[in-house]
Amino acid sequence: MPLTDRVKQILSWYGSDSPGVRANLARMMMHGTLAGTGKMVILPVDQGFEHGPARSFQPNPDGYDPEYHAQLAVDAGCNAYAAPLGFLESVADKYAGHLPLILKLNNSDTLAKMDQPCSAVTGSVDDALRLGCAAIGYTIYPGSGARNVMYENLRELILEAKSVGLPTILWAYPRGAGISKDGETAVDICGYAAQISAQLGAHVIKIKPPKDFIEQAEAKKVFEKYNIPTKTLSDRVKHCVQSAFNGKRIIIFSGGESKGTDEVLAEIKEIAKGGAFGSIMGRNAFQRPRQEALKLLADVINIYKSS
Amino acid sequence: MPLTDRVKQILSWYGSDSPGVRANLARMMMHGTLAGTGKMVILPVDQGFEHGPARSFQPNPDGYDPEYHAQLAVDAGCNAYAAPLGFLESVADKYAGHLPLILKLNNSDTLAKMDQPCSAVTGSVDDALRLGCAAIGYTIYPGSGARNVMYENLRELILEAKSVGLPTILWAYPRGAGISKDGETAVDICGYAAQISAQLGAHVIKIKPPKDFIEQAEAKKVFEKYNIPTKTLSDRVKHCVQSAFNGKRIIIFSGGESKGTDEVLAEIKEIAKGGAFGSIMGRNAFQRPRQEALKLLADVINIYKSS
Amino acid sequence: MPLTDRVKQILSWYGSDSPGVRANLARMMMHGTLAGTGKMVILPVDQGFEHGPARSFQPNPDGYDPEYHAQLAVDAGCNAYAAPLGFLESVADKYAGHLPLILKLNNSDTLAKMDQPCSAVTGSVDDALRLGCAAIGYTIYPGSGARNVMYENLRELILEAKSVGLPTILWAYPRGAGISKDGETAVDICGYAAQISAQLGAHVIKIKPPKDFIEQAEAKKVFEKYNIPTKTLSDRVKHCVQSAFNGKRIIIFSGGESKGTDEVLAEIKEIAKGGAFGSIMGRNAFQRPRQEALKLLADVINIYKSS
Amino acid sequence: MPLTDRVKQILSWYGSDSPGVRANLARMMMHGTLAGTGKMVILPVDQGFEHGPARSFQPNPDGYDPEYHAQLAVDAGCNAYAAPLGFLESVADKYAGHLPLILKLNNSDTLAKMDQPCSAVTGSVDDALRLGCAAIGYTIYPGSGARNVMYENLRELILEAKSVGLPTILWAYPRGAGISKDGETAVDICGYAAQISAQLGAHVIKIKPPKDFIEQAEAKKVFEKYNIPTKTLSDRVKHCVQSAFNGKRIIIFSGGESKGTDEVLAEIKEIAKGGAFGSIMGRNAFQRPRQEALKLLADVINIYKSS
Amino acid sequence: MPLTDRVKQILSWYGSDSPGVRANLARMMMHGTLAGTGKMVILPVDQGFEHGPARSFQPNPDGYDPEYHAQLAVDAGCNAYAAPLGFLESVADKYAGHLPLILKLNNSDTLAKMDQPCSAVTGSVDDALRLGCAAIGYTIYPGSGARNVMYENLRELILEAKSVGLPTILWAYPRGAGISKDGETAVDICGYAAQISAQLGAHVIKIKPPKDFIEQAEAKKVFEKYNIPTKTLSDRVKHCVQSAFNGKRIIIFSGGESKGTDEVLAEIKEIAKGGAFGSIMGRNAFQRPRQEALKLLADVINIYKSS
Repeated sequence: MPLTDRVKQILSWYGSDSPGVRANLARMMMHGTLAGTGKMVILPVDQGFEHGPARSFQPNPDGYDPEYHAQLAVDAGCNAYAAPLGFLESVADKYAGHLPLILKLNNSDTLAKMDQPCSAVTGSVDDALRLGCAAIGYTIYPGSGARNVMYENLRELILEAKSVGLPTILWAYPRGAGISKDGETAVDICGYAAQISAQLGAHVIKIKPPKDFIEQAEAKKVFEKYNIPTKTLSDRVKHCVQSAFNGKRIIIFSGGESKGTDEVLAEIKEIAKGGAFGSIMGRNAFQRPRQEALKLLADVINIYKSS
Repeated sequence: MPLTDRVKQILSWYGSDSPGVRANLARMMMHGTLAGTGKMVILPVDQGFEHGPARSFQPNPDGYDPEYHAQLAVDAGCNAYAAPLGFLESVADKYAGHLPLILKLNNSDTLAKMDQPCSAVTGSVDDALRLGCAAIGYTIYPGSGARNVMYENLRELILEAKSVGLPTILWAYPRGAGISKDGETAVDICGYAAQISAQLGAHVIKIKPPKDFIEQAEAKKVFEKYNIPTKTLSDRVKHCVQSAFNGKRIIIFSGGESKGTDEVLAEIKEIAKGGAFGSIMGRNAFQRPRQEALKLLADVINIYKSS
Repeated sequence: MPLTDRVKQILSWYGSDSPGVRANLARMMMHGTLAGTGKMVILPVDQGFEHGPARSFQPNPDGYDPEYHAQLAVDAGCNAYAAPLGFLESVADKYAGHLPLILKLNNSDTLAKMDQPCSAVTGSVDDALRLGCAAIGYTIYPGSGARNVMYENLRELILEAKSVGLPTILWAYPRGAGISKDGETAVDICGYAAQISAQLGAHVIKIKPPKDFIEQAEAKKVFEKYNIPTKTLSDRVKHCVQSAFNGKRIIIFSGGESKGTDEVLAEIKEIAKGGAFGSIMGRNAFQRPRQEALKLLADVINIYKSS
Repeated sequence: MPLTDRVKQILSWYGSDSPGVRANLARMMMHGTLAGTGKMVILPVDQGFEHGPARSFQPNPDGYDPEYHAQLAVDAGCNAYAAPLGFLESVADKYAGHLPLILKLNNSDTLAKMDQPCSAVTGSVDDALRLGCAAIGYTIYPGSGARNVMYENLRELILEAKSVGLPTILWAYPRGAGISKDGETAVDICGYAAQISAQLGAHVIKIKPPKDFIEQAEAKKVFEKYNIPTKTLSDRVKHCVQSAFNGKRIIIFSGGESKGTDEVLAEIKEIAKGGAFGSIMGRNAFQRPRQEALKLLADVINIYKSS
Repeated sequence: MPLTDRVKQILSWYGSDSPGVRANLARMMMHGTLAGTGKMVILPVDQGFEHGPARSFQPNPDGYDPEYHAQLAVDAGCNAYAAPLGFLESVADKYAGHLPLILKLNNSDTLAKMDQPCSAVTGSVDDALRLGCAAIGYTIYPGSGARNVMYENLRELILEAKSVGLPTILWAYPRGAGISKDGETAVDICGYAAQISAQLGAHVIKIKPPKDFIEQAEAKKVFEKYNIPTKTLSDRVKHCVQSAFNGKRIIIFSGGESKGTDEVLAEIKEIAKGGAFGSIMGRNAFQRPRQEALKLLADVINIYKSS
């Protein structure tokens, strides 16, 4: 299947990157059910590290097995599968050839309480190459006092990754002493996180669906002065897409905690309507029984396909 | 003796690693009395560094001499012997050829009090190669505020080790300000530590036998909702084995403080019943008189052999 | 099986080497039917590169398949298997764990005619590590005008190999414009090649069985003056063993072109009687049907075992 | 003078080290009045850096001149002379050829107050080579919160030094927030420091003479349970020697603050009786007038010679 | 034994070298029977490589064993022992501590006929360090069309050696298409070789005893014009010493082919009388039975001692 015009258009926005980086972006966009649409649905499974195994996998115990997730991503027609080093190592020899893999290079457990959260770098660009990955993944916590550590580690990793033809997916989760709990998903903060991510050189940006709340007083003045609409999720997503270089960086949205199917699909419809390039859906996928998960992912993909 | 089907099966789970790494895993699994069973009993002697010489060796003063331990590992039919740099240097010229050696690359003494404990890196992958080791060992303290330092040092060492064909044994000891004293051996925490270890890319994971206690409130909800059994040690071990990629990573259990022989053997039986791949037994072995130690290790090995 | 006194004695001659190098020497000497005897029978298969596939494998077409040879080495109870990069890569994932592998780091084809023959370096020490090899192999052509290129490449490889714990097996084949065709296997030349190999730092030296001929006029005077016996093959082998640091370097003998079984065994008996540490037998093994090859190798091994 | 049997025996405990490292160990053991006995008396002069010049040299102002100390070490028949970079640079061109020099690679001044003391690395292995040194020296402060920094710097230096044939003398001075003032010379802590040093790969360990005090509660239980004698200095030295790999690592004792001659000699007698390999004596030597210093060192050396 | 005034004077001529280089020069000059005299008698054994084992060792078959030579150098009271990598590796673990070792870094066999002879570099400065050597050795063939290759390899090795404190002994053997057979030992050529060696940065220069013959026409004119005496060997040696920076570089003389004892001693007397710093004597030493060799070396040493 040749590159579609839409995919070519998206790639044209990454014109300063090497053909290698763009080839891997194309590989993700040309894979799975959404191949060629410029939309992406990614399966991420880093919750074993982030939240612990029981909380992550007991709802659907098949998920304790690393191969379960890779096969789920294949069968559901996802564009890519993202996970930490260990999970990818346990499947890369079987899947690297036909499922785009994203190696999450940093991770944070919930065993140590940290006022200023900071993920540990737990993998390397060299790992991504030897495991045949299509991209690296990385998480930043804008709002944490330790954000500079994360930005600076990213600086080195993203530069190294670019030099070997690997694009970067950036998880941007505002949190830390600098912002309130509600502020973590405030629309101004989500937009701000998208902007920072794009400025840091991310090729694909992943944020949480923004809520109708504005954290920063200075931002509130502007939102009010210019009547930036924030009532509907699609409005807010639109602001975030705009904040990602006016839509010239791929920006996708997470699903967050697991919830009811209808609720998930309603949210996705709004996200799609807002101009998002896709979704990254972990717990809502792998914590369901496999058939339900396949059905849900098919429905989600279908929403993007027809959007 | 050719590789057994069980050993081949275990190696198949490490399919993303080089033949060199797998060869060294095989070397450990094909050595000693348990050769070919896929089970491992390892003798570790790092207590001189971790607890001081008198506390470690006075109960059986022969243990002050480094050669005592290497010969004990040989005579007891252990799969491997693990120790810090100094102990290995003092025996490698005699033992490297016929006893798989594991160089423990970080160690922590108990002279400085640390709220956020962190081991020092005290050896190098280059040391492991020149000493003819079959693997490197490393300790992490999930729960410590300094855990990221340890994870990130590990990241570099494990990548370097993989590149020269050496697998990594990870000692995962949750401790630090993030968790309670009881939490250090809580079943949820032990399982979580196993998961983190596997995600960090460890080939062999070593944790403490988990106790019937749940530390994290969020985990407690899941254990209760899904009725994860935790009453018997074998139940809890089973959860930890599952947390180690559904048993697709070798996971072994420490013996902890020295205790009575019957108590040790009863514990090992439960651990074996839970599906553990083996034990790592230090103080309970080398603090006994040699004949008793040999007898105990033989009994332990026998439990795994017939499990 | 613990190291035998004989193996310990041999290792003591390599006292300037690291425990890692000695461990790998021990690993080869403690493997296969001859384990512990200090004798070695190695299966080498580099003829596909050196002579072409049809000449090498058509006599027993199973040999076109790389796995055939590794399995033959295992089933015959050889100490090790030596081959170029490609052959080892195609079997290392299955065999590295239980068959000592020797990566031949240089090879020469017979497509280009060279007055001053010189092998190309076709593999690296890094390859040997990632493939889990127990040693590197290298060929020199003393007598070639290009010998210095080979000696100097070896200098770098042998130093690097030593630094990562790998011993070196040196194939010493005198040839080139400097010596006559008969001189290639002249007893003075074979002894000289053994001496050069040992001086270059080789751990194991492999030469051809010397013939009752003396190439160099200066050497002839000495052989005659001191009545160095050269009538029987065992006499000549004895001179070569002496030339390998008075037997303090492991020296083994090739079988050369394939020939009749009786002839082979008669030759091996003489070689063993001369004090050789073993044989390296390629074409005479893998060009026979498998059952005959196993029988022949068993007979050869038996000669060394009882010598 | 050929290596004595005792020196050969001691060298045999360092069998994993290169001939270069062992040669330099031998060079120190074969130098000075104690040559061949396996005993060592070393003159160290780093007090100018550690305590300031007036405190160090005014008692005997000749000591302001670097050459004074090197000549004192020669005339007194010491095995070696240890000092920081500057002192060695000012004498190496005259003395490197006939006095084994030890370059102290880290030093700490007393100008900045540190809760968690940590020496600065002030010299390099390259310096040691260009100055013709026989060894490097390094100080650790077990008990300091900064100990990991020191252990990890050492890890790199000791590996580099080994690779170029230089052994390491480790000064182990427990101090810092983790232990009490008395604890710095407690017998359990001194033994622990010796053990840590040996495990870190030190070839020669230097600790302070232990006092009849036990710092750690856990250690106290063991000392009492097993009746480890601590009444006399020789008893306590014996424990420390045992803690240094059962006497298989060279362990020597410092003299500490300057004191009366009788007191010094009485202490040395006890240290020698306890099995120490020697003494390192700075202030008690160079703060005396030269003739008294020569007399004292001669007496000290004599004690070891006849022990 | 402190440095003598004569040794200090010699070392003063090497004032641009680091203390490490001078320390190793001193070490050689302060070792053996000639210690402190500024004279040197070195045992070199590279003939196994250069001429083949039978020609080298059959006259005294004990010499096939590497340890024979190192022990001979010790027992004869030589200043140092020089040999290629393999011979040094087989003895360094036992001898590095008490016999100065010189690693010959290039060697040439006599199997390939070369119009423009050129030795191969067969060892590294890293080897010299790990084997505990006091110096490196290197051979140049002034007169060979390939001399620039040798000079340029030397340039790199000598610079590297200086940086790690190792002096260089240069074997200067004029030969090759540029000069006649007689010219190889012509007095003008020998002096010229000494000058080139000194200019290349050699610390110790080794040439053959010059004969009463002048090779180069231009040189002949000068010798005649200025009546440079060349009749006696001592005259010619004097010219060579003068050519080595007016005697400010250590220059020693080889013995060449083995010959009668009286002839050897007469030659040495002339060489000593000419102002040579010593001799390097291989075949005349090790090809004699051990007792005769010890006697001869003692006589040679005695000549230098009383000269």
